[in-house]
Amino acid sequence: MNKYKRYERLAALVKIFNENPNTIINLEYFMNFFGIAKSTASEDVDILKEVIEKFGFGKILTIPGAGGGVKYIPLSNIQNYIPFVKEVKEKLKDPSRIIPGGFLYTADLIYSPSIVSKMGEILVYPFQKEEIDAVVTVETKGIPIALMCAKVLNVPLVIIRKDSRVTEGSFVSINYVSGSQKHIRSMSLARRALKKGSRVLLIDDFMKAGGTIKGMMELMEEFDAEVVGSGVMIATEKPENKLVDNYISIFVLKNMEEEKNIIDIEIGDWILKEGERE
Amino acid sequence: MNKYKRYERLAALVKIFNENPNTIINLEYFMNFFGIAKSTASEDVDILKEVIEKFGFGKILTIPGAGGGVKYIPLSNIQNYIPFVKEVKEKLKDPSRIIPGGFLYTADLIYSPSIVSKMGEILVYPFQKEEIDAVVTVETKGIPIALMCAKVLNVPLVIIRKDSRVTEGSFVSINYVSGSQKHIRSMSLARRALKKGSRVLLIDDFMKAGGTIKGMMELMEEFDAEVVGSGVMIATEKPENKLVDNYISIFVLKNMEEEKNIIDIEIGDWILKEGERE
Repeated sequence: MNKYKRYERLAALVKIFNENPNTIINLEYFMNFFGIAKSTASEDVDILKEVIEKFGFGKILTIPGAGGGVKYIPLSNIQNYIPFVKEVKEKLKDPSRIIPGGFLYTADLIYSPSIVSKMGEILVYPFQKEEIDAVVTVETKGIPIALMCAKVLNVPLVIIRKDSRVTEGSFVSINYVSGSQKHIRSMSLARRALKKGSRVLLIDDFMKAGGTIKGMMELMEEFDAEVVGSGVMIATEKPENKLVDNYISIFVLKNMEEEKNIIDIEIGDWILKEGERE
Repeated sequence: MNKYKRYERLAALVKIFNENPNTIINLEYFMNFFGIAKSTASEDVDILKEVIEKFGFGKILTIPGAGGGVKYIPLSNIQNYIPFVKEVKEKLKDPSRIIPGGFLYTADLIYSPSIVSKMGEILVYPFQKEEIDAVVTVETKGIPIALMCAKVLNVPLVIIRKDSRVTEGSFVSINYVSGSQKHIRSMSLARRALKKGSRVLLIDDFMKAGGTIKGMMELMEEFDAEVVGSGVMIATEKPENKLVDNYISIFVLKNMEEEKNIIDIEIGDWILKEGERE
């Protein structure tokens, strides 16, 4: 006689998987947690696999061999994110977001936990089959989205600082040219913050000319890190020649006219194309 | 004949609740989502209520009346967090964390998604019955923990900036004295980032004399905001007379001796006391 009924175990499994995405969990963990036989644990996982896929909540993979087990990938098909992306697009078009000086106010979106959770899932989507050791961002506004990317991938977040008031031991600094304003700025990262040879995903909230991402790439070289890809929430359409070319963005800001109160923003092509393909 | 079996609906409900903590969800939402009758939806929720409590995953509350529904509070009893807190304490005691100048290296912990998720839940724990409109932090290191607090509470995160290169429209700045170093610093927040009269929870990673939290409190006055409480991951024991008194911390740093490689750190009393009471 099992301590828990099957529906109880399945409900608990969803919670456990959801809190430990992209983590290999050995069947023994479930055997101990629920006090069940291996065959039962294995059946439970098989049933849950189907349920998860049926609802488009992602997938559960079986990793064979020693050190194997099961792991939950919380990413559903990209087309499931399209209604969400459209909703955020409408919010972004609100002309009251135009800040004098040609800036776009987005703090209410990029600091909203429910919105950044989904944005993190979308930005990680194209890289889900890559091995990634860390998500790297530069302070400040990209941190919430980057943290959510790191959460989905179950890897550490690394935050590059813009000042050198760094109280984290020896650090590496680089100077970079902010592409749009041609100002020289610097960014720093503590030596111990990132293992040599890591494979990293670069995340930021906004990209214009790409100077910040390019600076991050240069800093990554100092750590012998390999940049697997870069993702931003919004990239501007102009300048067309960015300082980096290997990046994705959820939105493309085509035009913003302060005088006419117009914000022209589109959803990144790759999301719609990927959605059609599925 | 229902489209989904009960165990399928229950598993899906866990996922939906987990992604929408502290959010009132109308039973009609489930009726439409699963294509079921109200009585079935209500039964499902009742069953799930028991399962959630049985496993210590939090609780599901029923909110009566128009605009009512059910909401999931993801906080389990504080005693369930004690093994986690003890584990982090051991990690914090590692002498290799001592940075020359008397600083403690914590970036690997405060930027780890799985660790900050739990820390957010703990810091929110004492305030779960309060009405809170926003979680407020100051850049940079407290952002991940604060975001996770905001996620549990399902409220926006507000990030105070330390520089005035703020591109978010008109803003309010205050000067404050960093208590430990007696330096004058400033912090700024855009006018539109926080509604007048909001009830806020202040979150940061580290507190010594309390100058930063005090600065945040002063800035909150400018927004007519009411500070419901303050929480930090680590507070130092000295100075005993902090500039603020209404705060909680997960850890108390009693002593750190660079020469002897000693870090003396304890778990906050309130966690252990609260744990005993339950």
